[in-house]
Amino acid sequence: MSEKPELVPGETRKLEVLTAIPKNEGVDSAVAATRRVISALLHAGDRTSAEMGAVAAQLNAIADHLDEHNGPVDDRLVDMWSGEGVTRHDPITGAENAIAPPLHLAGREDGSIGGVVTLGLPYQGPPGHVHGGVSAMLLDHVLGVSNAWAGTSGMTARLTLNYHRPTPLFQELEITGRQMKVEGRKIWTEGVISVDGEPCVSAEGLFINKQVPRPR
Amino acid sequence: MSEKPELVPGETRKLEVLTAIPKNEGVDSAVAATRRVISALLHAGDRTSAEMGAVAAQLNAIADHLDEHNGPVDDRLVDMWSGEGVTRHDPITGAENAIAPPLHLAGREDGSIGGVVTLGLPYQGPPGHVHGGVSAMLLDHVLGVSNAWAGTSGMTARLTLNYHRPTPLFQELEITGRQMKVEGRKIWTEGVISVDGEPCVSAEGLFINKQVPRPR
Repeated sequence: MSEKPELVPGETRKLEVLTAIPKNEGVDSAVAATRRVISALLHAGDRTSAEMGAVAAQLNAIADHLDEHNGPVDDRLVDMWSGEGVTRHDPITGAENAIAPPLHLAGREDGSIGGVVTLGLPYQGPPGHVHGGVSAMLLDHVLGVSNAWAGTSGMTARLTLNYHRPTPLFQELEITGRQMKVEGRKIWTEGVISVDGEPCVSAEGLFINKQVPRPR
Repeated sequence: MSEKPELVPGETRKLEVLTAIPKNEGVDSAVAATRRVISALLHAGDRTSAEMGAVAAQLNAIADHLDEHNGPVDDRLVDMWSGEGVTRHDPITGAENAIAPPLHLAGREDGSIGGVVTLGLPYQGPPGHVHGGVSAMLLDHVLGVSNAWAGTSGMTARLTLNYHRPTPLFQELEITGRQMKVEGRKIWTEGVISVDGEPCVSAEGLFINKQVPRPR
């Protein structure tokens, strides 16, 4: 870690490669509403007095309606991966993915990237704190985007996470990443999740410059 | 990795510590329906002809209804963590968490644990394959449950993931874990995600035997 430049908050500019413009903005609002439902169901739990049978029936009716309009999944995969590599579906930043918090990332002039996110009940591990696996998921993605921002991307080969202190729910987290070194097809990248300037989880990744082919 | 016993499918028995009985079964069905909505929205994407504005309004109405019945989040946190440590809310196995695939885990007589899961569009990273961060999230949790099954649990201190081959979507994945060693407060645990018997991602974790206090 000795070669690591300090990852400090700095001047940011829009990371345009990551912000595809939706062709149907209603999808993004439906996904945002689904995030509210996910959180409210967890908040409700199994001691709620809400009529959960009726809620389940309404949600199943919405899923049925969407399924009726959906074509074959193979066609959708081709569609998802068409264009200039800008995706809207990943589980960390994806506007179309209700699993994503979502994290919004911006590239910085110094070559690093960063974003802030506040995580609620769906991301809980220990009481009142972020699940260690969620931190790992966020950091793996941030390292991948750091590579894209630096201009040389690859697949994760090895990822090492160090947990320094519990990461709180309901507080603004800063997540930063930076590509450190490229040698041949190997790429080394680092990132950190911090709260109030104190590191909670840090990550070091080794990536290999290759890609899974896109579906056609 | 040389000391690693082979993690083979074997005789399983129910991992009772992980299967709390819901007090309101409707919650589980509402969460299952929400998983269908998450997946259908991703399948729809932003080129769908479905009336997404109407879908968003319906979903927001459901969230509003649930919010009206929900009490303070601090009370919910106390409730979540009451009882014998059996939780239903984590983002990997939680019946109340629509982010969870969910993965069902079972303990084995040989001290390992395992489960199978098939992941769809919400968990995608590279085209048609599981996001490396999702694999990390699943394995961190499986290592934690392996510790619970072995009888000595802790917080993740370091997690190392090795990615051997891309992990496919839409195919049954086997995930196994095993506690390897305990020395003082240090715990070493390993796990692997396999498809058709071939390892895709393996994990080694170091855990420290301490806990975040429960809310009261």
